[in-house]
Amino acid sequence: MIVGLDHIAIAVSNLDEALQIYQNILGLKLEKTIVVEDQKVRLAFLLAGEAKIELLEPTAAESAVARFIEKKGEGIHHIALKVTNIEAFLKQLKEKGIALVDEKPRVGAEGRKIAFTHPKSLKNVLIELCES
Amino acid sequence: MIVGLDHIAIAVSNLDEALQIYQNILGLKLEKTIVVEDQKVRLAFLLAGEAKIELLEPTAAESAVARFIEKKGEGIHHIALKVTNIEAFLKQLKEKGIALVDEKPRVGAEGRKIAFTHPKSLKNVLIELCES
Repeated sequence: MIVGLDHIAIAVSNLDEALQIYQNILGLKLEKTIVVEDQKVRLAFLLAGEAKIELLEPTAAESAVARFIEKKGEGIHHIALKVTNIEAFLKQLKEKGIALVDEKPRVGAEGRKIAFTHPKSLKNVLIELCES
Repeated sequence: MIVGLDHIAIAVSNLDEALQIYQNILGLKLEKTIVVEDQKVRLAFLLAGEAKIELLEPTAAESAVARFIEKKGEGIHHIALKVTNIEAFLKQLKEKGIALVDEKPRVGAEGRKIAFTHPKSLKNVLIELCES
């Protein structure tokens, strides 16, 4: 079951430049920055009330985020929804014909169980589910 | 000052079909649907914890949302952030060089003061500010 919105992720070419805008000009509070080696990204989490804005910078040309930026430019990459019992929820979505990127959850950047659904089933929106 | 995330808006060609997925399959609770005549859109608000997911369907070919879908396909159209004192916040953004679509707030679909910033200043993200 979906219980809330966790974050909105924005793909950016240069994290420091994006932080200059989102942190210093918009005034969003920086929670933390993380490097996720296996995804080849550097992340910054900014707080917007209960939700977060995640800035995603690729750290290598072969990163999926680098390919996204090359194809579509910088911009919103995905949204993440908090769910209870992620395994049961994924099973239910699959039974109802929703295409999944991850059929089973994996461990995300913040140590939680996460899984991505495929944009083709959800009006071109890439949705990450994360266990709340 | 930004105090939270209000909603994520997704442009869709057919609202009923999108609701079938977002409401019936994902299980998000429908709060309301509204027709906004002057913007030529029909909206559905779905609840995701403190935030909302807004599905945006154009009701005429000359609607800005229809042009968005024609150019980019269905997908995330904008995000909306809740702010206190929207006039002062817009003034501050303008002084810091952020391009604004609306220099002064107007009244949005839900009767609140809203204004859009221009994506060119914010890493291609169209941001709506709405007074909290």
